[in-house]
Amino acid sequence: MNGSIIRYIIGWVLNIEAVFLTLPCIVAVIYQEKSGFAFLITLAVSGLLGFILTRKKPDNITLYTKEGFVTVALCWIVLSIVGAVPFYISGEIPSIINALFENVSGFTTTGATILNDVESLSYCMLFWRSFTLWIGGMGVLVFVLTVLPVTGGHNIHLLRAESPGHSVGKLVPRVRSTAMILYKIYIVLTIIQIIFLLSGGVNLFDSLTIAFGTAGTGGFGIRADSLASYSAYIQNVVMVFMILFGINFNVYFFFLIKKPKQALKFEELRYYFGVILLAVIVIAINIRGMFDGWGTTVKHAVFQVASIISTTGYTITDYNLWPQLSKTILIILMLIGACSGSTGGGIKLSRAVILFKTAKKELNTLVHSRSVKKIQFCGRTIEHEVIRSINVFIVTYLMLFICSLLLISIDNFDFTTTFTAVISTLNNIGLGLEGVGPAHNFAAFSPLSKVVMMFNMLAGRLEIFPILLLFRVSTWKKIK
Amino acid sequence: MNGSIIRYIIGWVLNIEAVFLTLPCIVAVIYQEKSGFAFLITLAVSGLLGFILTRKKPDNITLYTKEGFVTVALCWIVLSIVGAVPFYISGEIPSIINALFENVSGFTTTGATILNDVESLSYCMLFWRSFTLWIGGMGVLVFVLTVLPVTGGHNIHLLRAESPGHSVGKLVPRVRSTAMILYKIYIVLTIIQIIFLLSGGVNLFDSLTIAFGTAGTGGFGIRADSLASYSAYIQNVVMVFMILFGINFNVYFFFLIKKPKQALKFEELRYYFGVILLAVIVIAINIRGMFDGWGTTVKHAVFQVASIISTTGYTITDYNLWPQLSKTILIILMLIGACSGSTGGGIKLSRAVILFKTAKKELNTLVHSRSVKKIQFCGRTIEHEVIRSINVFIVTYLMLFICSLLLISIDNFDFTTTFTAVISTLNNIGLGLEGVGPAHNFAAFSPLSKVVMMFNMLAGRLEIFPILLLFRVSTWKKIK
Repeated sequence: MNGSIIRYIIGWVLNIEAVFLTLPCIVAVIYQEKSGFAFLITLAVSGLLGFILTRKKPDNITLYTKEGFVTVALCWIVLSIVGAVPFYISGEIPSIINALFENVSGFTTTGATILNDVESLSYCMLFWRSFTLWIGGMGVLVFVLTVLPVTGGHNIHLLRAESPGHSVGKLVPRVRSTAMILYKIYIVLTIIQIIFLLSGGVNLFDSLTIAFGTAGTGGFGIRADSLASYSAYIQNVVMVFMILFGINFNVYFFFLIKKPKQALKFEELRYYFGVILLAVIVIAINIRGMFDGWGTTVKHAVFQVASIISTTGYTITDYNLWPQLSKTILIILMLIGACSGSTGGGIKLSRAVILFKTAKKELNTLVHSRSVKKIQFCGRTIEHEVIRSINVFIVTYLMLFICSLLLISIDNFDFTTTFTAVISTLNNIGLGLEGVGPAHNFAAFSPLSKVVMMFNMLAGRLEIFPILLLFRVSTWKKIK
Repeated sequence: MNGSIIRYIIGWVLNIEAVFLTLPCIVAVIYQEKSGFAFLITLAVSGLLGFILTRKKPDNITLYTKEGFVTVALCWIVLSIVGAVPFYISGEIPSIINALFENVSGFTTTGATILNDVESLSYCMLFWRSFTLWIGGMGVLVFVLTVLPVTGGHNIHLLRAESPGHSVGKLVPRVRSTAMILYKIYIVLTIIQIIFLLSGGVNLFDSLTIAFGTAGTGGFGIRADSLASYSAYIQNVVMVFMILFGINFNVYFFFLIKKPKQALKFEELRYYFGVILLAVIVIAINIRGMFDGWGTTVKHAVFQVASIISTTGYTITDYNLWPQLSKTILIILMLIGACSGSTGGGIKLSRAVILFKTAKKELNTLVHSRSVKKIQFCGRTIEHEVIRSINVFIVTYLMLFICSLLLISIDNFDFTTTFTAVISTLNNIGLGLEGVGPAHNFAAFSPLSKVVMMFNMLAGRLEIFPILLLFRVSTWKKIK
């Protein structure tokens, strides 16, 4: 394994984190908060480490799949550890494990919190917390690729390991240009949302944090009641943008290059809106009795469905009090998650659809024994390799799920809490039902459970394999 | 599709059911119960229908996969409907849907009951209820194959569709002989258990019903507290036999033909005992505080683990009161289920192990990009086709699971009840947690939920595809 290139890339990630850390420093200056020093110290350490690690360029810049995966996993762990330092040394989150949990939850765009009183946090901390969601949404390695051409053409592995979904392709021949385009779409969409929020009378700080949470599909609230106390207009804006950030970014790309027909050809998009529509109709009918009039009912249904399917996790009401059918639908949406190639988490709609088509085809094979029709998705034939990798993903996902369920069960919370805590972290949603429902948080779990959940959040964000690779002995043989 | 052979086989199944129905008639005579007439009437109708359907031999006795699957599914539905008639016309289960539920639960070896007061049932009804478990355990079609050579050599499809597990093979070249051997093993093991129970001082009636429930891994209790009020000796006998009936019957076959080495080569067997041991150790430590002394603790742990992994469902205590870790372990055992080729239900240990090995291999492929090692299981190389079919099984299973979860959620029970009700029926266990825990039953569900669960029980027993095939339009085209 090429150790020097991995060291070099980690160095650059630290440099970039140092740059990112200047923003909460500025926020601290504006609000004259002492906690700003925590960011300054972290910034200095991160920059220094980055400087040391990047001083010597690697001799060999080749990066194979394995190194790509390991690099991505290590970078995310380093990012999370460094990013947690300000929480801890400022004393605002006095437990190391909680500080780490909160930061891993941020970078992985989960949005699960251990804070019992989020409103007591200083502005610079609140800003950093939400900003990590935004950074994590598009991915840091993608950023590295955009800013500097580190590796020699082999960095599709990095992009592939960091981007959600099974089918990350290059939009344009060069990986770097692909990354650039993705980031541009991401930034522009975020800015548009901020403008919409500002025009609704919300101040700049709230607008920024809400937009970061939406864009990264993370959903850290800066108020105790998430978004419940904001105006209907703000809630509607967030609702629309949650849905938008759950869409495959390739769709926007095709719109940008004025090929709307190709954009609308995206089968996943039709399923995405189909599932949303169906879920909203059933939930609205199911919760009708709890709200005044169909308008409010439908709005609550749409908001919660959008928040869950995009794996954001903002709430405007305690859906844990809804009837079981609505809660079951939300749990299933949690499992499925958003489109691949979006900033959302979960198993991804494309995987679910392809699996469904495979099962249907096999059933057909039973009936007409000699049918060898291939599966089509988004206008392309799905190769056997893709189906196999999706199958392996699902199996690994289930195993991770079961192991987490067992370990978190030790805490002796009820089954629903345990079960949804696992989905919530593994699929980067940030909240579940009962003890991890909208009215609660993750503070009550034991350190062991929190470590398991941090692992889950990272595994979920990086689609399992990069993180699992770290735990294989053979991965670490022959490091050059 | 060859309609005449399907009709012919259904006719024979009805004939055999008529023969089976003589047994509860005898029980009714012994205990002088009026409900015996219900069996007499059903017997007559079943025999008459069978006589009509089997009068004309089919011209063409060829049976392809599709016909095999459809035949098996239809036979099981016919069996269940006819078998439910005595419950209903005797008035002992006054609701049609409940009578059907109880009988489907019996034939599919689930053991889920809708009876609030099982002890009020007449002896002949209790006998029939338990006897259906025994019939369902080995399968009716297997019986047909043993008794008469209906089809022309193509009936491996029948055996395959009806037997649990992915890898049903012929033990000996002729399918009929294989079926014969399986039934002999089944009968002998049941008789041995009955002898053990009788020698423990239990009367013949109780011995028979308990043994039927154990052999079929069904677990209908004839007392309200299942097996809690029987002596420790009886509980221990049942415990041992539950484990024995969860083992692949091929293992017994190899012992019979004096090839113990080949029997012990069965990898699945090692995993079976490994999983049991591990589960018992963790649960025993976890529930230690609830019982006096390690002896009682371990006994409870072993009994419950054996009952759940074999998908029997007998209980000697309300495990719903155990800590969450133990309950989560039980839920996972419910999912996995017993060995393939046993009378137990669930996804089957062999499938779980093969999937685990596949995932591990793929992870290796990531590390050593050109490794093409094939997976080994039970000393054989697992072909790609097998892995594919297991994957499709799992995906279809998950989809069925999710659909059932949604439909049963309409009843608005809590998530744990709904979730374990689905596992419990789809994996033919018969009980779950909370509202379907040992202290409760399935009476409270709506008719819709009961229909969904009956579907699940049949789908689970026949390993999904035969039942799903019935719902495809193309299955019914071109019936000759």
